[in-house]
Amino acid sequence: MRKLKGKLLVAQGGGPTAVINQSMVGIALEARHFDQVDRVYGAVHGVEGIVNEDFLDLSRETSHNLHMVAQTPSSALLSTRVKPDKDYCFRMFEVLKAHDIRYFFYVGGNDSSDTLRIVNAAADESNYELRCVHIPKTIDNDLVENDHTPGFGSAARYVAQAFMGVNQDNRALKGVYIGVVMGRHAGFLTASSCLAQKYVDDGPHLIYVPETPFSLEGFAADVQRVYSERGRCVIAVSEGITDADGTPIVSTLKDMGADDHGNVQLSGTGALGDLLMDYVKQHTSITRVRADTFGYLQRSFMGNVSDRDAHEAREVGEKGVQFAMWDDIDGSVVIRRPVLNYGVDYELVPLEKVAGKTKHMDPSYLNATGNGVTQAFHQYVRPLVGDAFPEPYRLRAPRVPKRS
Amino acid sequence: MRKLKGKLLVAQGGGPTAVINQSMVGIALEARHFDQVDRVYGAVHGVEGIVNEDFLDLSRETSHNLHMVAQTPSSALLSTRVKPDKDYCFRMFEVLKAHDIRYFFYVGGNDSSDTLRIVNAAADESNYELRCVHIPKTIDNDLVENDHTPGFGSAARYVAQAFMGVNQDNRALKGVYIGVVMGRHAGFLTASSCLAQKYVDDGPHLIYVPETPFSLEGFAADVQRVYSERGRCVIAVSEGITDADGTPIVSTLKDMGADDHGNVQLSGTGALGDLLMDYVKQHTSITRVRADTFGYLQRSFMGNVSDRDAHEAREVGEKGVQFAMWDDIDGSVVIRRPVLNYGVDYELVPLEKVAGKTKHMDPSYLNATGNGVTQAFHQYVRPLVGDAFPEPYRLRAPRVPKRS
Repeated sequence: MRKLKGKLLVAQGGGPTAVINQSMVGIALEARHFDQVDRVYGAVHGVEGIVNEDFLDLSRETSHNLHMVAQTPSSALLSTRVKPDKDYCFRMFEVLKAHDIRYFFYVGGNDSSDTLRIVNAAADESNYELRCVHIPKTIDNDLVENDHTPGFGSAARYVAQAFMGVNQDNRALKGVYIGVVMGRHAGFLTASSCLAQKYVDDGPHLIYVPETPFSLEGFAADVQRVYSERGRCVIAVSEGITDADGTPIVSTLKDMGADDHGNVQLSGTGALGDLLMDYVKQHTSITRVRADTFGYLQRSFMGNVSDRDAHEAREVGEKGVQFAMWDDIDGSVVIRRPVLNYGVDYELVPLEKVAGKTKHMDPSYLNATGNGVTQAFHQYVRPLVGDAFPEPYRLRAPRVPKRS
Repeated sequence: MRKLKGKLLVAQGGGPTAVINQSMVGIALEARHFDQVDRVYGAVHGVEGIVNEDFLDLSRETSHNLHMVAQTPSSALLSTRVKPDKDYCFRMFEVLKAHDIRYFFYVGGNDSSDTLRIVNAAADESNYELRCVHIPKTIDNDLVENDHTPGFGSAARYVAQAFMGVNQDNRALKGVYIGVVMGRHAGFLTASSCLAQKYVDDGPHLIYVPETPFSLEGFAADVQRVYSERGRCVIAVSEGITDADGTPIVSTLKDMGADDHGNVQLSGTGALGDLLMDYVKQHTSITRVRADTFGYLQRSFMGNVSDRDAHEAREVGEKGVQFAMWDDIDGSVVIRRPVLNYGVDYELVPLEKVAGKTKHMDPSYLNATGNGVTQAFHQYVRPLVGDAFPEPYRLRAPRVPKRS
């Protein structure tokens, strides 16, 4: 069997997740088993680390420390939002050649997979033999071909536990609570708030995702209805909700700026939450209205990961190395769910099948009125948040008869 | 020994915490041991439940369910922000008398302890024999006489773990990160973000608390300096920061409304974070600036409590009952720390010593430049966040020499 000999380079791109280092460590440790791999390098700050020739020699890292780093959220190799053009790729090759790097593993989401596709195409053009393997991660869960993506389960766990708490809080001090959840194009993470529901009147009572056009008027009517019924209302809403024309609701308020990939800034601001809060105050009779924007805590909170998510994040890294070494091909590792409750399997698909594409929530996961999720989504998401998932309890003591 | 016979009533007031039900359950279970207590009732929605005669018979609740409820965040008896006047108290007595309630336990913070003081004084005036016991709770940690208060340790744990994560996130994708933390008059919770620091360059790099007057100009200069040195900057700031005149910084932006106790709404809005973010963008050369407002998640996040905080919250409830039964006196249970590292003891002090007063951070906890905390504060706060406190790890792999 032919063995492509050389160094293996791993990098991490895009928004960090709580388990993205599991994948990096899975790659670094698994690659040690293959004698065609001279060394395992890590590029610092994603593709920027390649053009800057800024590499760490992960072969000189202890297994123990790698295991500890794996349990630390956010990209230990640091990250980037840079989207390489042809010229950028050419400069990358110069460096890759100089170090005899023959395997390039990029752990990332839609944008990172697209970067890898461009690099791989440019490598082919240059007749530089390079195995490019994309390892999936994204809290948005919006990579096509994947049943779900590493990073999502832990973020979903965080969001669900957050709503469990704020639902209790909202019962204790009644009013309207709006929680703004990450999710630019896909509502999976926001929808995961449904796992906070245990008792029949538990929130979130309304869930809005980017898949369904959002109207402020319809929103205020929904809120008024729930509030009239229950005296309170808990709402989960995606940062990426848009109007019927596809314009982000938050953009109707202020100009938020955009990154290299043309993405408008949605996170790191309370603007959407405050906009919705003000709208409810102005268009209903409700006075106590609160809005929280969950922000970066969703993807990086330390100490509350889904064990299942952590294991799968490790496995996609390991499997990526095995595919590249045993099968000698490029591609993107994808997660399948061959059984409903619950097991996964991994495949390698061509980069083009994943790169730059966005998966949305299946219509069967969304209710007919566009403000909630179905039992099918509950079934889909519950296994992903892992074991030791907490559960709220209420008093069941009987009411005392009146005497006065 | 004289025994005051009658029913015992427990209520919960003010903002919920993650462990406030531990105290309620501590009271309910301990009271079962004393034969002078006919029944244990719970008032629904604090003092509102008394005037509305809305009681649950906690004597008919199983120990098992009480233990489960104790682990659920936020007031299981529901809460209130109502501040009773004399007339309100008179209506309360009519109901208390009708049910022969002779022990009134109120679990709450500054405002709730003041409510209890008023109720107790009115009871004396009416010659109605009533034992009033205040059980401390507040995530702000601002009750006088107490080394610390139940609820704070879990909130501090949440804030510290949040900053551990966002610090990693901010290393990976550099820029300025502002995290707005609860704390109206006291900076303890914001200051607890210091526990996220492990490596020498870990954030938060700047910490601003209400105890030190805040200036936007000084803030921007601090941020620019840290950013110039490190290429990034993580900031923890209290929602309650004020200017030199004591006006909340957030009030300079918009009118936020106030509750019955005259407290301006600081939480449930991203206004302060967005104000600070915009100020940095406008007054420095830094472009990537993000602000998160931690909001209600700090006090109610489910599944991440401090075990020490949970145990102490249970104990203050138990001890309150013991003080009332064995010593037949009114008062407020307070936590002392007789040893530095680490043990607590409980005392009962007169209600007047605690009611309506606010504890601030000791000056020895704050650095001289008003933008950070001291080692003394680290020592103070570390035991409170409990065991199994996570710790971030970094790669220590050596840099690869350049070749190209």
